Order: sequence, then C-alpha cells, then structure tokens
Amino acid sequence: MSNKRVYLFREGDKSMRDLLGGKGANLAEMSNIGLPVPPGFTITTEVCTEYYASGKKLPAGLMEEIETALKDVEKDQGKTLGDPNNPLLLSVRSGAKFSMPGMMDTVLNLGLNDQVAEGMIAKGADPRFVYDSYRRLIMMLSDVAFGDRYEGISKHDFEHQFYDLKAELGVKEDLEVSADKLKELCERYKAYVQSKGVTFPQDAREQMKEAVEAVFRSWNNERAIIYRRREKIDDAIGTAVNIQAMVFGNMGDDCGTGVAFTRNASTGDKEVFGEYLMNAQGEDVVAGVRTPLDLNELKLQNPIIYNEFVNFCNVLEHHYKDMQDIEFTIERNKLFILQCRSGKRTGTAAVKTAVDMVHECLITKEEAIARVNPDLLNQVLLPVIAPGTKYDVIAKGLPAGPGAATGVAVFDANRAAEMGKGGQGQRVILVRADTSPDDLAGMLAAQGVLTERGGMTSHAALVARGFGIPTVAGCSSIRVDAEKRQFTIGDVTIKEGDYISLNGGLGEVIHGQVPVEDAKMTGDFGTFMGWADEFRKMGVRANADSPADVRKAIELGAEGVGLTRTEHMFFEGDRRPVVVSMILDIDNPETRAAKLGELLEFQREDFKGIFEALEGRPATIRLIDPPLHEFLPNLTELTAEVAVDKAAGKSDAAKETMLRAAESMHEINPMLGLRGVRLSIVYPEIVAMQVRAILEGAASVIKAGGKAVPEIMIPLVGHVNELTTIKADLEKTAKAVEAEQGVSIPYSFGTMIEVPRGALTADEIAVEAEFFSFGTNDLTQMTFGFSRDDSDKFLKPYVERKILPGDPFESIDRKGVGQLMQIAIDKAKKVRPNIKLGICGEHGGDPSSVQFCYEIGLDYVSCSPFRVPIARLAAAQAALGKGVSDK
Amino acid sequence: MSNKRVYLFREGDKSMRDLLGGKGANLAEMSNIGLPVPPGFTITTEVCTEYYASGKKLPAGLMEEIETALKDVEKDQGKTLGDPNNPLLLSVRSGAKFSMPGMMDTVLNLGLNDQVAEGMIAKGADPRFVYDSYRRLIMMLSDVAFGDRYEGISKHDFEHQFYDLKAELGVKEDLEVSADKLKELCERYKAYVQSKGVTFPQDAREQMKEAVEAVFRSWNNERAIIYRRREKIDDAIGTAVNIQAMVFGNMGDDCGTGVAFTRNASTGDKEVFGEYLMNAQGEDVVAGVRTPLDLNELKLQNPIIYNEFVNFCNVLEHHYKDMQDIEFTIERNKLFILQCRSGKRTGTAAVKTAVDMVHECLITKEEAIARVNPDLLNQVLLPVIAPGTKYDVIAKGLPAGPGAATGVAVFDANRAAEMGKGGQGQRVILVRADTSPDDLAGMLAAQGVLTERGGMTSHAALVARGFGIPTVAGCSSIRVDAEKRQFTIGDVTIKEGDYISLNGGLGEVIHGQVPVEDAKMTGDFGTFMGWADEFRKMGVRANADSPADVRKAIELGAEGVGLTRTEHMFFEGDRRPVVVSMILDIDNPETRAAKLGELLEFQREDFKGIFEALEGRPATIRLIDPPLHEFLPNLTELTAEVAVDKAAGKSDAAKETMLRAAESMHEINPMLGLRGVRLSIVYPEIVAMQVRAILEGAASVIKAGGKAVPEIMIPLVGHVNELTTIKADLEKTAKAVEAEQGVSIPYSFGTMIEVPRGALTADEIAVEAEFFSFGTNDLTQMTFGFSRDDSDKFLKPYVERKILPGDPFESIDRKGVGQLMQIAIDKAKKVRPNIKLGICGEHGGDPSSVQFCYEIGLDYVSCSPFRVPIARLAAAQAALGKGVSDK
Repeated sequence: MSNKRVYLFREGDKSMRDLLGGKGANLAEMSNIGLPVPPGFTITTEVCTEYYASGKKLPAGLMEEIETALKDVEKDQGKTLGDPNNPLLLSVRSGAKFSMPGMMDTVLNLGLNDQVAEGMIAKGADPRFVYDSYRRLIMMLSDVAFGDRYEGISKHDFEHQFYDLKAELGVKEDLEVSADKLKELCERYKAYVQSKGVTFPQDAREQMKEAVEAVFRSWNNERAIIYRRREKIDDAIGTAVNIQAMVFGNMGDDCGTGVAFTRNASTGDKEVFGEYLMNAQGEDVVAGVRTPLDLNELKLQNPIIYNEFVNFCNVLEHHYKDMQDIEFTIERNKLFILQCRSGKRTGTAAVKTAVDMVHECLITKEEAIARVNPDLLNQVLLPVIAPGTKYDVIAKGLPAGPGAATGVAVFDANRAAEMGKGGQGQRVILVRADTSPDDLAGMLAAQGVLTERGGMTSHAALVARGFGIPTVAGCSSIRVDAEKRQFTIGDVTIKEGDYISLNGGLGEVIHGQVPVEDAKMTGDFGTFMGWADEFRKMGVRANADSPADVRKAIELGAEGVGLTRTEHMFFEGDRRPVVVSMILDIDNPETRAAKLGELLEFQREDFKGIFEALEGRPATIRLIDPPLHEFLPNLTELTAEVAVDKAAGKSDAAKETMLRAAESMHEINPMLGLRGVRLSIVYPEIVAMQVRAILEGAASVIKAGGKAVPEIMIPLVGHVNELTTIKADLEKTAKAVEAEQGVSIPYSFGTMIEVPRGALTADEIAVEAEFFSFGTNDLTQMTFGFSRDDSDKFLKPYVERKILPGDPFESIDRKGVGQLMQIAIDKAKKVRPNIKLGICGEHGGDPSSVQFCYEIGLDYVSCSPFRVPIARLAAAQAALGKGVSDK
Repeated sequence: MSNKRVYLFREGDKSMRDLLGGKGANLAEMSNIGLPVPPGFTITTEVCTEYYASGKKLPAGLMEEIETALKDVEKDQGKTLGDPNNPLLLSVRSGAKFSMPGMMDTVLNLGLNDQVAEGMIAKGADPRFVYDSYRRLIMMLSDVAFGDRYEGISKHDFEHQFYDLKAELGVKEDLEVSADKLKELCERYKAYVQSKGVTFPQDAREQMKEAVEAVFRSWNNERAIIYRRREKIDDAIGTAVNIQAMVFGNMGDDCGTGVAFTRNASTGDKEVFGEYLMNAQGEDVVAGVRTPLDLNELKLQNPIIYNEFVNFCNVLEHHYKDMQDIEFTIERNKLFILQCRSGKRTGTAAVKTAVDMVHECLITKEEAIARVNPDLLNQVLLPVIAPGTKYDVIAKGLPAGPGAATGVAVFDANRAAEMGKGGQGQRVILVRADTSPDDLAGMLAAQGVLTERGGMTSHAALVARGFGIPTVAGCSSIRVDAEKRQFTIGDVTIKEGDYISLNGGLGEVIHGQVPVEDAKMTGDFGTFMGWADEFRKMGVRANADSPADVRKAIELGAEGVGLTRTEHMFFEGDRRPVVVSMILDIDNPETRAAKLGELLEFQREDFKGIFEALEGRPATIRLIDPPLHEFLPNLTELTAEVAVDKAAGKSDAAKETMLRAAESMHEINPMLGLRGVRLSIVYPEIVAMQVRAILEGAASVIKAGGKAVPEIMIPLVGHVNELTTIKADLEKTAKAVEAEQGVSIPYSFGTMIEVPRGALTADEIAVEAEFFSFGTNDLTQMTFGFSRDDSDKFLKPYVERKILPGDPFESIDRKGVGQLMQIAIDKAKKVRPNIKLGICGEHGGDPSSVQFCYEIGLDYVSCSPFRVPIARLAAAQAALGKGVSDK
C-alpha cells in the first residue's frame, strides 16, 4: 500500500486503475494528453479499504492531503472553496476499477451554501442557475450523505416537493421555474432535512467530508452489491473518489451536457452516437425528466462544438484504441470532457468494432480477439427483440435458453406439437411446471419454452440450449395450472391462446407480442471468427443429435461432433411406442430382440445421416444413457389415474400393465441408478444394436465413397471392469459388422469420465479407453452431491450469499471438479500418453471453463451448436493467454 | 514356477499349501510326523494352471513324473498298479489351497478292472469287497471323467441302477447285495457307459490319466465356481491332485471310515466329536445312504482304535495348534488318517476354542485374536434358531439384519406397532414392499422385518442393523400385497396372522414358527474381547440415537458415540405432528420458531439422556440431515388419494394442503437435494434449535456433577464456506447457552466427509473443522454414482460377474472411495495435524474396512451397537497385522 492517498489528475495515468479507479485514471490520462478536463484529484481505492477496515472512519491525515490537493485546484481555477466572493464549486464522484454505472453516489455543486449563493449572484451569476445548482446540491448531498443514516430522508420526497412546487406554479418543465421559486425550493429542502433531524451543512469542507464518506459508503449499498455479484466484481477492491472543479451545463442556453459513444454501441457502425440536453446538469440526461436530443441535433445547432467533440472522440479512440463512452459538458460554449471509459456494446457492435479497428490499424488481430467477451456472441447468433421495442416484463426466471420468442401460450406438449408443427404452424410458447423427455416434440415445435421449476441445467434448459430454443426456466413467481390451461403471476392470468413473449437471454417473460428479428451473420462476424481460428490451438466440436444439428454446428464452425445422445432418437415419432413395448417386456429376450430389430432400422438411418452431414469429421456417439423408466409415463400421474379408474369401478389393462412396469422400474434417485453402462451390462442387447447401427451407418457412407469416423462412447464408467466387460462384447459386434459389410471402419471406443471414481481410477480405465470425454454435468453433480434438477432451492442462495463463487453447473468448479479432471488426466496420460481428451458437458460452451480446459490440456471442447462460436473465441483467447480466469 | 510337478508325501510339508494344496500339504506333514498315512504323492496346483493355460492339456512329461512317484509307492506297498496278481489300488483326490469341501471330484479304487478283480479274488480277497469297490470305481470315474463330456452319463443313473437291482433282489441295504450281484452290477454299469459312447477304460494308467484330468476340470465346475465366489477365493489358484494308495473301509466288519473334529465345532467344547460307518467307503458317510454312528459308539465297540484315534487327535492339535477336522479309515482293525484340516466352526466355538487353547498354552493371545473371523462374532451376539431345528425355507433375500425371529406376518407398520408394542405384545414380523421412515415404529415393535425391495443399505437394512432387528430385505421372489394383507411366493400365500420366521444372517424366509434362542454372553467371550482391547490401537464407537442404544453399545464395548442421527428423534411419537406442521408452513418464520420451541423441549431431554448414558464418553451428534419431505407422506400415494377424492366430488382441505407441500418439496434425486448443511443454510433455525438442545442437555448433566462431551457434526459439507457460514451462527448459539447456563461445555464442531468435493478440498475444510467423520455410505454413493436405494438391480450382477470385487456398501472400495479418504486425510493433516478422524458409515463395522481405516490412520471407527465387538476384534487384528486385506 502506498502512503500517498490523494493524486492530482496530473499525477496519475490510465495504468493506475487499481489505485485511482477507472474514472480517476482516465481523468488523469485525458488531462495529461491535453483534453479539456476540469482540474481535480482522486482519493485512492485503498482509502476505501482503510475506511471499511477501521469501521467506516476516514484515515487520519486524509483531510489534510485533500486540502493540499484542493489548494492546487483552487490555484488553477483562481477560486476558493467556500469563498462567497469567488467560490470554487466541486463535483464529488465515485469511480471503481470496473465501471459500475449509476450504482454508486455522486454529489455535484458542492461548496454552495446560502452565503455563497448570494455571493455568486452579487458577482453577476444568473440567480436561476445558482439556485438550480443549490437545490440540486441539497437534494444530492442529503440523499447520499444522510439518507442511509436518518430515517425518512429520501430522494423521492425531494422530487415530490419540486413536483408540488411546479404544480402550485402551474408549470410543467423545470426550466419554467423562476430563480425566486428555486430559492424557495432550497428553503423547503433545508426545512425538510431539518425536520428529519439534520441541519444541512453550510460549511463547504463539512459538505466535502460528508460527500467523500457517502461515496465510500455507497460502495456497499444494495444495488452496488447486486451489480457486483452479477458482474462478478470482487467486493474487496473498493471505490476511489474523484473531486473535481465543477463546470456547468445549467448556466443558460449556451450550456449543456451529454453522453456519447465514439461508435454505435448497438451496431458498431463508425459514427459518434449520443444524446445531450442544453441548460442541464448530467443527471437530467439520465433521469428522463427532460427528453434528451440526438447528438446529430448538436451538429445542426452548434457545428463548431460538435466538430470539436468529434475530434476529441477521434483523439480518445486513437489514444485508448477502443470505442469510448464519453461524458461532456458545455459551459458557455466551451466543451469539457468529464469522463471517458471503454463503451459497453452489444455482441454485434463488439465484433464489428473489433474488426473495423483492425482494418483501421488501431489494434492487432490478437487484441481484437482478446477484446470481445465470448458470451456476447450469443447476441450475434440469436433472434432478438427488435432494438428499441418497449415491452412489459411480467416475470423473470432463469435465462435458460437465450434468444427472443413470441407466440401463444400452450400448456400441453402434445397440443404445442400439434399447433406448432411444420412451417405452417402457429407460433406457440410451451408453458409447463417443468418439462420431461415426454415434452420434447412440443418443445421442438415451440418458439420458446417457459417453466416454473428447474435450474439452468434442468431438462428444459438442456434441451433449450441443445436445440437453440429460447427458454426461461425456473420462473418461480408464476404458477402453472396445466389443467386449467393457464398460469398466473400475482393478479395476472395468462390463458391458453394469449400471446406472451420471452427474452431468453435475460430470463424475461413478456406480456403480449413483440417483434422478433432473426440473427444476422454479417461478414464481420465471419472475419472475426476466422481470426479466432487462426489463434486457437484447442479443437471445438458440437453436441448434436441429428443431421440438422450437425449441419448447423458445422455452419457455426464445429470441427466434429463431441456428443451425440442416442437416446433422444428413441423419443421421436414412431420409435417411442417400440421402445415402450420393449420396456414393458424387458425380461423377455425375444421381445427385446424383436423390438431392437425395429429400432436398428431407425438408428442406422440416424447415424448414416449424421455421418453424411459431418463429411468425414469425427463423431463421438454416446450409447444409451438414461434409465429406461424415463420412457414410461410419470409414476405419480399414472398411479392417480389408475386409482381414479379403480374407484369408479373401471379397469384398463394396458394402463395397469404400464403402471406395474413404472412401479417396478421406479427409482428413488434415478441419477444414481440403473443407467449408462450399468444398463448396458444388465441389458447388453440395446447397445449391441446401437453399435451395429452406428457401424452399419458408417459402412454405408464409406461404401458410397465417403468417410465416417465413429468414436463410440460408453457413459458412466466408474470401474474399468465395466468398460472391459461391455467393450469385449461390442468389439465382437464391430468386427462382425466390418466382416459383413466388407469395409474397414476407423472406429474407436472410449468413455465418459463423469463419475468421480472414473476420474480417480483413470489409470486403470485409460488402459481400455482410447479417448476420454469429461461429462462435467454429471461429474459436477456427483462431486458436489448436487442434483441439477433439485438444486435451485439452495444454489441460488449459495451464490447470493457467496457460499459458492458461482453456479458450478455454469462454470467448472476448478478446485473440486477441476481437481478430479486434473487427477484423471495425469493418471490417464501415464498409461496412454496420447489419449484423446475432450469435454462434452454444458461447460464446453462456457468461456471460463474453456480456458480451464485449455490449461489442463484437453484436445477439444464440445458444446451445443449455438455456443460453438463462443467456444471458438474462448479457445482462441485461452491460447493467447487472455482467457477468462477463475472467479 | 518350480520345475518339479510331482511331490511324494515325504518331500512336502504343511508350509507348501500354495503348491500342494491344503490336503496335499497336510498329508505330507502327517506322513513326516509319523502318523499312519497311506503313501502317495501330490501333483502341484501349478500343473492345474498349466492345464488351463494350454487349453486343458496335461503338460508334457507329467505322466513320466507321475510314473516315477508311483514306483515309489508301489515299492512301499509291495504292489503294482494294474498287476492282477498283486494290484495296487489308488485314490485320486482334489485339494486346493483353501478347503472347498465336496465341491471338486474324487475317484477311489482306481486300478481295478475285470482282470484285477478276478486276480484279487484268486489271491483270496473277499469277492463282495472287490466288486463293491469296482462298482464304485466305474461309477465315480465315469461320472467325473466322462459325465461332462458325454451327454447323458449321470451319477443319478448309476444310483438308479443300483436301486433297481436292490428292488429286483427284494433287499434294502447295500450290504445285503451279494458279490455275484455286485459283479452283475459292474457289468450293467459298463454296458450303460458303453451305451453312451465310452468304453470304460480297463487300463489302470488310462484310468489314472482320466482321473487326474477330471480333478483339474472339476476346479471349474459350476458348484466350485459358485463356492469360490461366495468364499472370495481367487479363481486363478487352481487345485492340486493327490494320488494315494487305497486303504479300505469296506473290506468287512473290521473295517470302517469316518470324519471327526478334535473339538465340538458348534460349542467349542473340548471333546472329540464325529461320525463313522463300519464296512463302508468315505462317500457313504457323507451321502446319507446309511445313517452314520456317533463316534462315542466306537469308544464302546472298539476302545483300542478309539483311544488310538483320540491320541492322534491330540497329536494333530498340538502339531497344528488348532482344532482339526480329520478323515480316517479303519482297514482290518488298523487305523489310517486320510486327511486333516483346520475345522470350520461356529462363532461360539471359535471364541471358546481360541480362549481354551490360550489357557492350554497351545497358542498365544495374539494368535487367538488373529484366528477368529470377526464376522463370526455376529453369531455369538444374536438370537439364533435353536441348533438342530429343521425348517422350511420358502424364499431367500438379502441378509440385511442378522439374527433369527419368529412371529405373525403383519403388512402395515401401524398395525405392527399396535400388535407388537410393549413386552405384552404379540410377536410380529413386519412385511412390506419396502420401508420408509414412516414404518419406524412398526419396525421397532416387530421381531423381524421382511421387504420385497431394497438392498443391503436400504432404509430397512440400515434400521435393521442400527436397532439389531433381524431383517431379510430385497426378497424379490415374494410379492407383497399390502392391501390384501398377504404376500405370495409362487403358489404359497402367507396371509396376515400366519406365522413366518426369518433367519436374518442367511437371508432365509421360513414358513411357520421356529424355536429361537437368545444370545449367550459367556465368560469366554468377555475374556476374548478383553484380549482384543489389549492389542487394538484404534478406538471403537457406536452409532446410537437413544439412551437405550447407548447403553447397549457400552455394554458391547463402545468407547463413545460416533454418530447420533438427530432426525430419528423427529419421527417419534408426539414429535412427528409438530415437525409436519412446521414443514407445512416452512416459509413462515413465526411458525418455524413456535414449532422449534416445542421440539427443543423434546430434543433437550433426548440429548440429556444420551449424555447420562455415556457417563462422560464423547458423543458425535450429527445435525439434521434428511430432506424435509421425508417427514411428509408419499407423494404418489397422496396424489392418488386426492385424485380419487376429487373424482368422487369430495375435498379434504388438510390433505390438499399436505399434497401441495409434498409437491413443492418433491425432489427428483433427494439424495443430492436440499438436505444436510444445505437445509441448515436455507433454514438455519432448525440446527440452531438442535445445537441449543445439545448444549442445554450437556449443561444439565454437567451441572448435576456429570461430564458431557458433545462433538457437533455438520453433514454433507462440500465447500468450506458452507461450514464457515453455519458454524459462525452455531458458535453464537453455543456461547449464548454457556452464558445462560453458567457452565463451560467442552463442545467442538466438525464435519462429515461424505461428498467427494469435501474430500478433495479437505485442506480448506479442516481449517474450520475440529474433526472429520467419514460418511462412507454417502461417499460411496457419490464416488460411484450408485444410489444405495436403487442399486440392487445392477450391484448383484456386478458382483456375480466380478465387475466389482464386492459390494462397495459392505467393504470400503479402497481404490476409489479409499483414495478419496486418503486424499482428505493428507490434505487435512497439512493444516490441522491433530485433527480427530473417524468413520461413521456402515463400513465402520466391516472387518476389511476396519483394517483399511487402521492403515490410513483413523482415530476410531463407529458402527451399530451390535457390530461393536466385531469392530473391536477387527481393530485388534489390524493392529497385530492380521487384518482382513483388500479383496
């Protein structure tokens, strides 16, 4: 920790963000490169830490250091804080290392008091300007300095008093209120504050001290904490405080204030883009009291100032080599820059800006790649609500599947499938309490899915991301009543057929229709992803279960398939009844053989299609994984139906048979039950059929002159003997198919590492497995003992209360799950140094996890097709050493 | 591998069991110490391995080696194999390293053929004896040598032909059949064999070769394989073959054969104990064709031979320093010893024999401790079916809770509780499809429990072992119909009120009543366990949830409580409704507070009672662990009930409220859901109440002049922050209670390590935890991804097919689960070298697991009270380096 607590702007520079915060560092930088920045100084973030460490006390000596810096500013401006004859007024603003716009407090016009106001007027200042500034100071300082300590002081009350005054006067606009009346408002404000037990401080230094403490305290106000949690900003870093000579946008009609981006933050177009208000202070632009004007208006009204501003924009872009978000004030036709920072932008803008800046020789390709947050690419790829649309959010759930969707609410998957099918279908949103594999057809036919229960990796969410269906899951504020075909949120009831919309990326549920626009795959995007591929060293595959998925994945840059879930194929159309009738007579080998014979015909075509679509790229195909009871109806519902029938003296033999099967197959913890390789050991015929189908499909592609590279993956292996046992059987099938078909197929056998014991004994398993794919969904479930279907209730509070740094189903938990992966890799490489290593859990599309996968030496990541570009970019960033580090 | 393949008896000794098998080594040893053993030689176990390795071919040169050894025997006996004028006859017997009685094949009287038979008679041999021996040879050799290669040759057919012959002759006993008729029988036998395609070999050497190969082949007959699996004998070790000059018990009335134990194998009493038959060969004693006589009869009939035999028994016991199981033959009043081996015995006999032999100065205390299989102690402690009782086993399930029980079948837990309650109650056996915590009262009131479903660690099994209730679980051949109050097994229907019995240790379900005897805690047992405690270095505690359990555990030698499951207390009597009403309004803090206030009163008394019973010993008390929905009715049943009501136009508000609660709390994988520390973080008041109750209970004991050492254990911790968070709250409660009560309580906080992530991050967790207790049940579930409630369906085939070496819920899986334990210990000791380490999973009472716990340095193991002596003995054996190693 340095001893120096206060830095004049000329003492700092942009590299000092840790100490001076982003705003302070940039004010210093801009001062130093000669931009018109009002002079000032920054109290360091370390002081904030000291303030909290000492129980919210400013450190001894700080006020003296401030005084010294202040003297410098006073000298520069030729004005003195608190001197009625020639007063310096100050702004006091927060500024942490990372931008937290609007989350912390600001006090403007500091230094004004009754005397100073009169003094300024006496010296010729416009009384209206003076009292407008004074009333703002009283409101802001009282709100931020006392609002959290004196009950009942609220900004709202101040606004109301101003509103009442305007009403008394019969005017609408702030600017219509005269100087006298603003002075009266100041009196009312002071009286209000007094009535709450505080005397508004007349002493300028007392004001300053209160303002500094208020900014420090605002670091831990509720909205700042929430914002940091969402943005994953460390709570410990603290904020700096920037104290700066005021410049005034509210001195008259030759004054103004505004904010602008050096490029269009939505589209990335190279054009200065912003809003401003004349005769106003900064907050007016944001607050929406007056409607700000488009910056193009300034071009017409005041081309000189406008051109000067555009010039400053160019200077700043060239200096910072990035698009800037700039605050400015015009005081009596003189332009001041009050802040600049890297501008937040949409994914589309991020990509376009990065590509353009490379073409403009501002940045290198590496910098371009490093600069775009991979998660932003989602926005580039998905349908979005037409920019600028206003809409009515009635509930928020988990952003389970990004993208926007609009359609009529439907509460039954079959009805949704019926209504939504084909291109001709109606646009529907399937609304369910939760979804099961039963609902798949309905989900696929829907524009979007909304569920009341289930987390980010619930069935609905997995399907959503797998198939790119905009989905809001776990929206616990709605109550779905499937029977009544409606859901309610408080008083609002949405009935079947009512239009709703979803904004999946934000978890928003919207009342009514919204205009939805399709993704635009611009040339810039292609260029950008091409660069990413130049740098990246790790492969990117996709999880895809159908030829259509595969084609989409390849279009998005996948180099193969990292996971084909063969069981999804069992749910489709004609197949389900075959599967069910096999299950109902599962212990009869003849039935099993007959039904598997039927399924073989289907599956062979499935795989053939996938290999054709892959055009020679490899496909890791996972043999059947879920417990068989997933194909049967819900036990509870079926029990109730049969009980009701029985009570009514009815009897339905088929239903009762189904119930007996569901009962006998019921599992208390299906996640840890008869599934994966266990199922294959108990009923080996199913996987034998699947391997035959895979290899016959591959053979027919090869015979037609194509190429097919099947990597057959056995799931849920925890003990090498499981793999040894099943592989021995399957190798026989494989050899038989090769012999029958008369072709050689470059197949291999491997396993998923998704059971902790599999990772712990990887040295044994790698003897048998030619490749490992980390199934980090299940590995996370078992390593933590968290069921992803049931963890909503505690994962949310865990993350909120920082018991966990984040949702381990989103980003790999490096210390636990990651440790197991590392153990597995170390052990496996000892016995098979060239073992192919991949990941096919949902984490394969999460940038932080991609970084980790790169660090531990995986050969590829695999994710849902729509996340392929994200993974490609994240992998490139990892290779460049610019990846997302652990939180 | 040695080059020598054949050892004369004089070339071997008892240390050569690996090479010569147990029988061969002991025959050699007995020869060398001068006992009357007919001369012979042994073909090594290595030859068996070679035989299989070369595709069932005898190695080249073997027959020559045999010939050399045979010459030695011929010389000794002055007879020649195959010489009609002076024939040597041989026995060919199997003999592996470990005794596998009756599992493999034997051929006696080898060397007989048509010519030799006539020659022997010509030289004066009794024709009846000659043809009796010949017919036995034809039957035995044909059966073992050809039975597995020629379809239709079966021992059964031979026996039928003899039976038919006796019927033709109108006689009943074998001895009534004349020499001529036996000769005729030999002809019939040869013709029968011929009809199946084999000519019975007349060449003695061909007979010998066939017999040797048959013995090798019998190593892999079905019953031998099953036996080895049950006894966990390695399939690879192979059998030796013993070829020995015949001595004949069937030469006349001065001949005989028998088997005896040097002590009573049931009681351990020091008395020779056995059976014999005059004029018979060995198989007759075993086969039960004739009823053998008690050896005491021989004492009367032939005191000289009897005394000589008793003398040999003493010689052998002193030589082997263990109780022996001996085969003998009397040929013309001369006694021969044909085999000796360590005698199998009951637990009671094992303990008594060991103690007696120490007192007899035959063995040391260490040897006594090493010699008793800890699992045998079960038999010493539990009620048993009165020895000698014949009973009718109608089904077999898993031996979930050892001990015998008899009572009337009852199909409802409440009814069982009603009928069985108090000392006055009827003896009932509770029969359920499966059990849930709801059934606890009924289970406790029952003599025994029988379930159709559920594995060795299902709810029923856990309760069974915890409370010492004889239980057969997962008896899948029965079908329970609770509604009809009956169960069926095939055609048999047992209705409520019918008597059944259980033999829990063997998983037997018995029709009707059987006499059941209580455990006898003899003085020898106490002496023996005292010695165990002298040697053992690791502590033994018990899992106990009530003062009665604690007292039982202490009586059985527990040094404290390693696990008190506080939730069991929530199910009892008046408490359940309080718990349920709290759950129904769980989100209302006022209800929670009120109901917890009521529960506090109960729990304080619970803990006070436990501390009193412990008399100052420590108690590890686990805070609430199960998901709250376990306290609610079954969702499926409730849904059906409400649906039926609704269909009938009825409505029961209370039931519907309950249903809504059950629905909203329902979890898909409750094992991985909202339970353990997660529950405490979401609803911290419950554990705050529990900690208060624990410490108030402790305080009242301390204030009364006693001692109480509560170790408060927080379950299911996977991330240190969980522990940090909850511990901070609970420490406050603890300090508050100390202040209120004005006493200092030596409490500590620790955690269960039962989630893989907990083990992997033990270095972080140990900073907060003063002790670890390995919860190996859950750790095994999560490490393997096996739900113990659902794993029956695959665990059984896994163990049968050797995919797993054993049930990991029985013995700790050292490679996987054990590796995690080792990781946890290594990491924890780095940050807290003196951390107290224990285990409280079911494995704490399993000898192999106890050995492992000793190896990795745990301070104590904890198990159910009835397994405490087993754990004490296993811990002593571990300390002596004689523990049960990994399988």
